[in-house]
This record gives sequence, C-alpha cells and structure tokens, in this order.
Amino acid sequence: MGIHHYFKSLSDLETLVRCPGRFKYHEHNVASHSFKVTKISQFLGTVEEQNGQEVDWKALYEKSLNHDYAELFTGDIKTPVKYASAELRELFSQVEDQMVKKFIDTEIPPRFQDVYRERFKEGKDASLEGQILSVADKIDLLYESFGEIQKGNPDPLFMEIYEGALSTIMKFRELECVQYFLDYILPDMLSEKFIPHSELKERTERLIQSADE
Amino acid sequence: MGIHHYFKSLSDLETLVRCPGRFKYHEHNVASHSFKVTKISQFLGTVEEQNGQEVDWKALYEKSLNHDYAELFTGDIKTPVKYASAELRELFSQVEDQMVKKFIDTEIPPRFQDVYRERFKEGKDASLEGQILSVADKIDLLYESFGEIQKGNPDPLFMEIYEGALSTIMKFRELECVQYFLDYILPDMLSEKFIPHSELKERTERLIQSADE
Amino acid sequence: MGIHHYFKSLSDLETLVRCPGRFKYHEHNVASHSFKVTKISQFLGTVEEQNGQEVDWKALYEKSLNHDYAELFTGDIKTPVKYASAELRELFSQVEDQMVKKFIDTEIPPRFQDVYRERFKEGKDASLEGQILSVADKIDLLYESFGEIQKGNPDPLFMEIYEGALSTIMKFRELECVQYFLDYILPDMLSEKFIPHSELKERTERLIQSADE
Amino acid sequence: MGIHHYFKSLSDLETLVRCPGRFKYHEHNVASHSFKVTKISQFLGTVEEQNGQEVDWKALYEKSLNHDYAELFTGDIKTPVKYASAELRELFSQVEDQMVKKFIDTEIPPRFQDVYRERFKEGKDASLEGQILSVADKIDLLYESFGEIQKGNPDPLFMEIYEGALSTIMKFRELECVQYFLDYILPDMLSEKFIPHSELKERTERLIQSADE
Amino acid sequence: MGIHHYFKSLSDLETLVRCPGRFKYHEHNVASHSFKVTKISQFLGTVEEQNGQEVDWKALYEKSLNHDYAELFTGDIKTPVKYASAELRELFSQVEDQMVKKFIDTEIPPRFQDVYRERFKEGKDASLEGQILSVADKIDLLYESFGEIQKGNPDPLFMEIYEGALSTIMKFRELECVQYFLDYILPDMLSEKFIPHSELKERTERLIQSADE
Amino acid sequence: MGIHHYFKSLSDLETLVRCPGRFKYHEHNVASHSFKVTKISQFLGTVEEQNGQEVDWKALYEKSLNHDYAELFTGDIKTPVKYASAELRELFSQVEDQMVKKFIDTEIPPRFQDVYRERFKEGKDASLEGQILSVADKIDLLYESFGEIQKGNPDPLFMEIYEGALSTIMKFRELECVQYFLDYILPDMLSEKFIPHSELKERTERLIQSADE
Repeated sequence: MGIHHYFKSLSDLETLVRCPGRFKYHEHNVASHSFKVTKISQFLGTVEEQNGQEVDWKALYEKSLNHDYAELFTGDIKTPVKYASAELRELFSQVEDQMVKKFIDTEIPPRFQDVYRERFKEGKDASLEGQILSVADKIDLLYESFGEIQKGNPDPLFMEIYEGALSTIMKFRELECVQYFLDYILPDMLSEKFIPHSELKERTERLIQSADE
Repeated sequence: MGIHHYFKSLSDLETLVRCPGRFKYHEHNVASHSFKVTKISQFLGTVEEQNGQEVDWKALYEKSLNHDYAELFTGDIKTPVKYASAELRELFSQVEDQMVKKFIDTEIPPRFQDVYRERFKEGKDASLEGQILSVADKIDLLYESFGEIQKGNPDPLFMEIYEGALSTIMKFRELECVQYFLDYILPDMLSEKFIPHSELKERTERLIQSADE
Repeated sequence: MGIHHYFKSLSDLETLVRCPGRFKYHEHNVASHSFKVTKISQFLGTVEEQNGQEVDWKALYEKSLNHDYAELFTGDIKTPVKYASAELRELFSQVEDQMVKKFIDTEIPPRFQDVYRERFKEGKDASLEGQILSVADKIDLLYESFGEIQKGNPDPLFMEIYEGALSTIMKFRELECVQYFLDYILPDMLSEKFIPHSELKERTERLIQSADE
Repeated sequence: MGIHHYFKSLSDLETLVRCPGRFKYHEHNVASHSFKVTKISQFLGTVEEQNGQEVDWKALYEKSLNHDYAELFTGDIKTPVKYASAELRELFSQVEDQMVKKFIDTEIPPRFQDVYRERFKEGKDASLEGQILSVADKIDLLYESFGEIQKGNPDPLFMEIYEGALSTIMKFRELECVQYFLDYILPDMLSEKFIPHSELKERTERLIQSADE
Repeated sequence: MGIHHYFKSLSDLETLVRCPGRFKYHEHNVASHSFKVTKISQFLGTVEEQNGQEVDWKALYEKSLNHDYAELFTGDIKTPVKYASAELRELFSQVEDQMVKKFIDTEIPPRFQDVYRERFKEGKDASLEGQILSVADKIDLLYESFGEIQKGNPDPLFMEIYEGALSTIMKFRELECVQYFLDYILPDMLSEKFIPHSELKERTERLIQSADE
Repeated sequence: MGIHHYFKSLSDLETLVRCPGRFKYHEHNVASHSFKVTKISQFLGTVEEQNGQEVDWKALYEKSLNHDYAELFTGDIKTPVKYASAELRELFSQVEDQMVKKFIDTEIPPRFQDVYRERFKEGKDASLEGQILSVADKIDLLYESFGEIQKGNPDPLFMEIYEGALSTIMKFRELECVQYFLDYILPDMLSEKFIPHSELKERTERLIQSADE
C-alpha cells in the first residue's frame, strides 16, 4: 500500500496504447492523451470564461487529468463490447467502480482516501466542466484520427472514429467553446495543405533558377 | 462481405499486443502467440499419441489456431474484469458469441458459414484436444513471463503470471504430455544459466592466455 | 538437448523480420507469417473439400506451420543469391537439409526424431496439400506487399513482390481454390477504397449540417 | 495563425524524447512527463493543503502542465551546455522568452494572448506552487532514472541523474510534502524487491508439490 | 579516462535521433548520417579528382566522419535557437569548443591528444574538402527530407528542410561535383515514380490475362 | 542507372539489422556499424603510425567504409551457412562478386566504374590496412556483444560472439594497435562497474543525511 504504487502506476498509462489491434502510423498512449485533453480543456475553459461563464478550474483540471485512469484496471474494452447491451454496460460500470474503490482502499493511505474517491469519480457529468471534458476528449480523438487519415492510413476505421468524434462534439454545440472550435479551429484543420510530391519538381527548378540569377 | 476482410483481419492480430499496459523487454502479439501455441500443441499431441492416445489432429490444429481470434472483436479485457462476477462473465461470454456470430454472418459467404461457426467455437473443452490446447496456451504464457523474469523485468506481475500459468498446467497433470513437460522441459528451462557479467573478466583472460600459448 | 530449446527457438521466429533491409511501414515476422499462412491454407483447403477433393488436413496444417522454420538456421538469404546458379541452389539446399538434420539430432529426443524429420521435410511438393501451401504462402506475401503499396511505400520493390507473388499463384490456377481467390478475394482487395483526404472537408460539412437540422 | 497549430503542437511534445542520445530500456516523452508531473503536483498539493497551507490549485495545474512546453521551440539543450556560463544561460533564457513570445504573437489569437502569456511564464518561482512544481518535476525524473537502474541499465548517467534529482528535492525539505515523500514514498521505492531469477527454481518446485498434495 | 570511453561514445551517436520532436515515417540517427555523409563525400571527391582537382582524401574522410561528433556533448539545439543572435551563436560555438577540448583532455591519452584536437576541429572550412563536406551534409539532409515528402509526411517542415538544404547546395554551384549533382542525380531523384495504388487493378488484370494465354 | 540509386541504397544499410532473428536490447544496423568500424580503424591506424608504420589512410578509410556494402545484395547469410563447406563458401563468394559487378555495371556511370570496382574489392587482405580493418570489425562486434551481456541478455549466443570476436582479434596480436587494445582498452571495458540496485538504498541515505547537515 502506498503512494509509491500510485506514482508508479502513472508509467503504466504511458505503456497503454490507444486503439490497440490496428495498424497506425503514429501510436498514442493514455498518459499523453490525458495531457493533451487537459491542455485542450484549458483552452475551451478559457473561451467559456471570456464568454462570461464561471469556470471551476480546479474541477476542470481534475476531471481532465483523471478521466482515463480507470483503464489501468480494466484494460481496453472495445466500445462495441461495452455497449453491447444496457445490462452489460451497467455491469461493466459497476465492476469499474469496484476496482477503483479497491485501488483506493489498498493503495491510498486513509487520510487521502476521501480526496481520491472524489477525484476518481466519473468526470463527464452535466456540469460545465463535465461537458468541456466530453468535448476535449473527442477533440483529441479527432486529431488522432485526422492524423492517420492525413498520413494515408487505408483503414476505414479512422474515418469512422473521426465522424463519431465529430458527432459527439456536435451534441455540445450550445457551448460557446464548441462554436469557437467549429468556426475557427476545424476549418484550419481541414484547410491544411501539404505540398504534393508532384510539385517537388517545379519547386526545385524554381529554387535552382533563382539561385542562378 | 467476403473472405478478403477475413484475410485482412489476420494482420490485426499481428498488431494486438499481449499483456498491454505494462513495460516489457520483449513484446508479443496475438498472431505470433497463436503460432507458438499451435506448435506446442503439436508436440504435446505427439507425446499423447506415442502414449497410445488417439489424437484428432485436425481438431487439435483448428482449436489451437483459432483460440484467440475473438480478441479481434472484444479487445483485451483484463482477467480481473472478466472474472469479476459470474454474472459479468456469463454476459461477456454471450457478447463474445454474438460478435463472432455477427462476423460470420456478415463476412463469411453462406457456403462456408457452417464450417467457420464450428471453427470459432470455444476450443478449451473437455476433449483430449481441448485439454492439450489449455496446456499449450499456458506453456506459451509461461515462456513469455519466464522471458521477462530472466531479462530482469522488475514488475512482480510477471511472477504472478508465471505462477498462475504453472498452476493451470498442474490441473492437467494426469495427461502424459504434462508429465513430460514437468519431467523434461521445465527442468531444462529452470536450469538455464547465462554467463554472469562478473565472469567476463576471467573468461577473457583465459582466452587471451590460450591464444598466446 | 531437449524440447525446451525447440520451444525457445519459436520466439526467435518472432524476431526474424521478413524482407529485411528495406523501409516498411508495417514490419512482419516469420512467426506471424506462419500463422497467417496456416489460416489461409485452412480456408483454401475448405474450398477444395467443398469441391469434392479429399484434403489431408493433418498434412496441410503440418506443412503450413513448419514451412519457414529452417530460416532459423540459415537466416534470410535473398532470393537472387539463392537462385544465382543451379549449382549454388543445390548446395544451399543440401546445407539447409544438413542443418535441420543436425538440429533434430542434437535437440529432439530420439523417440520423437522420426516424427520431426517428417515434419521438417520440404512442404511444397506436388501433393494437393503441397500446392495449397505454395498458394497460401504467396497470398500472404501478396497481402504484405499490397499493404505497403496501399500505405504509399515508394519503393518499387513492393510492386515487384506483388507481381511475383501473383505470377506464382497463377501457376496453380487449375486449383479450385485459386479460382475462388481470383474470382472473389482479389477483386475485393483491389476495389478497396479509402476516403481520400480531399473528401474530408465535404464529409465534415455534411455531418455538421445534419447535426444542426 | 490559430489555435489549430497550438493543438497540433501538443503532438510534437509526444515525439520529443527525454534524455536523448542514450540507450534506455524505457523511453519517455515530454507530453507523458508533463502529465505525470501534473499528477504528482496534485498529490503534493494535497499534502500541503491537509497541512493547513492554502494551495492555488489553478496556478499549480497551469504551472505543471506548461512547464516544459518551451522545449518545443528550443529542442533539447543538454544541461551542461545550458549552464556552461552565467552569460550563456542568461542569453538562452532570453532566446527562449523571445520564442515563446513570438509563438504567442503569431499563433494565439489576440483575445487569448494575455492569458497565454501568463500561462507560459516560468513556473518554478518562489511561490508554494512554484516550489511544488520544482519538486514534482524532480520526482518524475527520479522515477525515470530509478526505472533504468532497476532494469539494469549499465550507463552511470542514470545514477547521476538519480542523485541530482534527489539533491534538488532535498533543497525543498522544509515543505511538508517533501517530508512526506522522504518518509513514506522514497522508502517504499527503495524497498521494492523483485524475485531474483535464482529463486524461480525453488518457487516452481514448491508450487508443483503443493499441487500434488 | 581512456579510449574505451571514446569507443563507447560512438554508440551514443546511434541513439541520437535527427530532427527530434517531429513525427517521421523513417527515423535517422547521427551515426548513420555520418556514414552516409562520408560515402557521399567520397563520391563528390571522385568527381572533383576526375575534373583535375587535387583531393586530400585523408582530410576529406576525417572531416566527414567527425563533423557531427560534438552533438554528443551539446545535444540537439534547434537551428533557430543557435542562430537567434550573433552573440548567442558565438557563445554557443565557444561552449562547444570548450566541451570538445575538455573531452580530449579527460578521455584521450596525452600521446593522441594533438591528433584528436586536429580531428575535432570544425570541418566546414574554405578548403576544397571543407566545401565538399558542406555539400555532402546537405545532400544527405535533402535525401532525408525527400524521403518524408515522398512517403506522404504532411508536416510542412520537411519541405522547408528540403528547400533549405538545396539552397545551401546552390551556394557551392561553382564546384564541379555540385554541377554533377544538379545535372544527373537530382533529376533522377525527382523523376522517381512509384506505381500509384490506382494502377494496381489494371496491372493485376494484365498479369492474370497474360498468364492465361 | 545512376548515382541516385547508389545514394538511395545507403539508406537500406540503415534498415539492415545486424544479428537478425535474436532478441536484443539494443539493435544495431549496418550503416551505423560501418561508421563505428571506420572510426575504430582511424584510432588503430593512429597507433600504428605513432609506432613508425606507414599507414595508407585513403585505403584504410575506403576499406572500412565499404566492408559490408555487399550485404545489400546478399542479405544476411548466417555464418554457419556461409562456412558449411569450402565449396559453398567459394560459390557464395563468386555470387557476391558477380552481384557487386552487376551493380557497378548497371548503376555506376562508366567514367566512375573503375574507381568503384576498386573500392568494392574485399578489404580484409594481408596489407596493414586490411589487417586493421579485420581488427576494427571485430572490436565493434565485441562492443555489440559486450553491450548485450552487460544489459543482462540471457541468450548464450552473445557470449559466443564475444569470444569469437576476441579470438579473431588475438590472431593479429603482432600488431602494435592490438597490443594497445589488449593493454589499455579491453581492461577498461572489463572493469566497468555499474552501481548495483542493492547499493541504491545506502547511497540514497547518505545523500539525504549530507543534505541535512
């Protein structure tokens, strides 16, 4: 028992690969994902605050940092399995709760247990911070799948993930920060162009000529 | 729909890492594991046959090759989750069956569906071949965990896996092939010695001296 | 001497990378390849059996599982070297045989030596099972090279491998299973389309609009 | 210009390997490190709060999340270079500031620039939160180097890093959270034992015997 | 102190990844880069020699082999940092010199120190060999960035690197070997074509038909 | 045909892994190996020169840089295969020569063919430079195998490689540079000590106490 095991477990999140069992050009892990979601939440919270909303920053950061910690105990359960039936989903959710509870009981010293019980609660609730987390989690997933599509991954799964993530984001389109994302960030992402291989020749010739002048 | 998707899915088994979320010196994947289990089953079956048992080789090979194919649909669900309750386990087993069923219905052409329904059945039954598969699966797991312990992996998980695998093998100790494993293979594995770093100096000096003579 | 060394050697097949010395997006190893070839053989055998042929399943599985085991002793010798002259090829084949023989003599206990001598024989003979193995081996190679071409590998070698594999498959086009491959599987493989990057924008807009309705 | 580039840059932090140019069993990247430091800061802050200190959680999270972001612009400059002279250090620090400033001016839209200028300030100041960050950063470094030493990395550099990190932590030993670390966490880390290879034989025999009883 | 540490340090150059902090399909390291630069210098020197220039081969090889060795001490400092100001660049250059000097003083035995001081001098001077090294270094960088563009890397950085490398090469266009590169090698590089995925179908059909004839 | 293909082939040497088919903690490739051998040759040549020998530096560098280039054509042929019989060895050697010849004829423009024919000749001849190359090649192999032994690789192959490399070096012990290696470098390599895990506790306590004083 002890905080040492908790600190050590953070390294396991670095080893937990996202979207396992599929070829990916660029692999991501749960620790890095959690970092990026927290940074995205930070930005989204800033948009809300500038729009006059009161943001509970402490809650927002805690929710974002911890939102995937339970994957340490349950492993990667594919979404279709998790959602195969309402009954199974409910059971899985109970098991997850029990595992987190057991972890806190055995690893976290008593004086910190209440604090960590609070921190490991499901973060995606109806509060503003819970909604921001839901959006930030999907924005990072959107970037991950966009990265594979852009690099030429032929697996249609990544287009499905892209569309699924965007659909979830759209459910929160009442939020000012989602509007900002749709109005400014997504268009920039989609208008990214990279120099096609076919332009290389022309560019090279232009550069050589201008050097000769 | 089509066999093309089935053939393509075999590559996904190559990408599915075993024991995810933990640091390992040497990673293994489900395709390689299935190959090794089938080769180990082949040997165990040979021992049984020499001992007078009748081995249904076709069944043994089919069971071994397919025993982890369903992980493609369900992902890696950690054992403690799977076995958290009899109810969850039962439900999970139903979901797995439905997913395999759905895969066969949508991807395998009708004329082959009966054959593949048979092939994708749970292989670890009470038949001699089912028992051999249970043992072969754990022997490969034993080798995987032994490899980590031998290379110096400080994670105690691998000792737990080693002991768990051996315990399951012991449940089949009535089988002649398990006796062979315990009498001849395991002792060889345990008596493996490697030259400690500390002997390097002495060996080097001996070699230099003998070259000078 | 002992089966332990034989079991351990299976892990070395996991470390033996196919097509070494070339940049690949997705690396494959000999153990995974052997697994996939065996699964493909299984399907091809099923087609033959449905077509009224008698399939010796035990032989088919043994041939498929073991067909590349000798690479453990010889390493990866590039095809142009192997086939540089009839004389070299013959000599090389003798060396390979001697190495397998020596392995069996030193590692396999006497009571199993006859069985393993049989298993390690060249599998690609004129029998139906030998022909199926020849086809299955090339189908997996076709998938490996197709995967590189599809992901955008600019090395022309993979097109050469693709065409070489297909040419060999065509030599067996009298087989019903090759007809099935040409009629149903290859067309599916070639008609695979993936969403081009350029379609992303349109799809995204459609999704956003439909969410707004 | 735009938040899209900022979000995209977070992926580059995933690609930035820590302690480059040295063999490591387990590589870590700047994104994962930032996640772990933030989680460690969270715990240390909790200790301080329980001890009656007032913790500015928003500041603590911001400092921790952003503390290594500037490495994106400057790359990994080895410590001995950075600290080669007071003059060079001062100049480097100015260049870093200018690069962050330029990034904010060109990528962050004007309405968010003040907020991000604040967020990208040097976090390791004399405030309680700044001190906690200094400690948390070194605790993660301690774990990284401990991991290499424990796995058997023969490079003496990791012992130097371990000792350097611990020395820095000791400078903050007036903090209650450092006392907690020294009293409870560090001893647990050091008393970690893993089953030596040499014990395997005995354990295996015990397990086999108990199964037979 | 001793040559052993010098020999060992060569392995660290194998671990030092070029262009860190960016996604790359194909990573390169400083040791491999140094090898390729030396081989390219060898060719360029041959062109010069055939053109009547006298090439100091010993100097050319020494310059090429050692040109990035100092990165061992300084790490990868991003170019914009290095060149942020004339003052910083000068200071940085002094630090690098001091580090190399210190390395020679502490690791190289006195009888070899003069030789190694000479070898570790900045190689890109105004001599013919220094100019050839400048060109060879950029040709390898051109190939590295071309490789990423050709494989479909969407990061615009690689186009910038490609153009930057070509611009530097153009500065040496008075050299016969640069003329050779521009006249014969670069056009071959740019005219490389790879079979597009879209041609696969047609080629496959042609191959199948010709086999049937 | 063209130098472009020659330059491009250098990247394939980066992808050619040494000692394939075995688990290694630290993989090395042929390009990096060639770099290290050339640097080691440089040092050995310096020792010879200081000892009054005349060193043909151009020849020494050329031999070292090119000594493994032919592996590009032949792949990795395991030593026991290569040396299985004098006849096979002779045939392999002929094939290798023909392949290099063919490469030069088709890829190297006529005006450079004589130069490259000379460069691609077997370098390990009886000349001083040929002997230095033989030694340098084995010193790098010694370091590679030492690295695996030191990191705890349990595969006895690496001890065999270590002893084989040392035996070959001993055959050249008449060379002054081999004497230097045996007298100064090898002892340093063998006396390398790394802090055992077990000392960590004591060192940590000492450091904490001294900080408290």
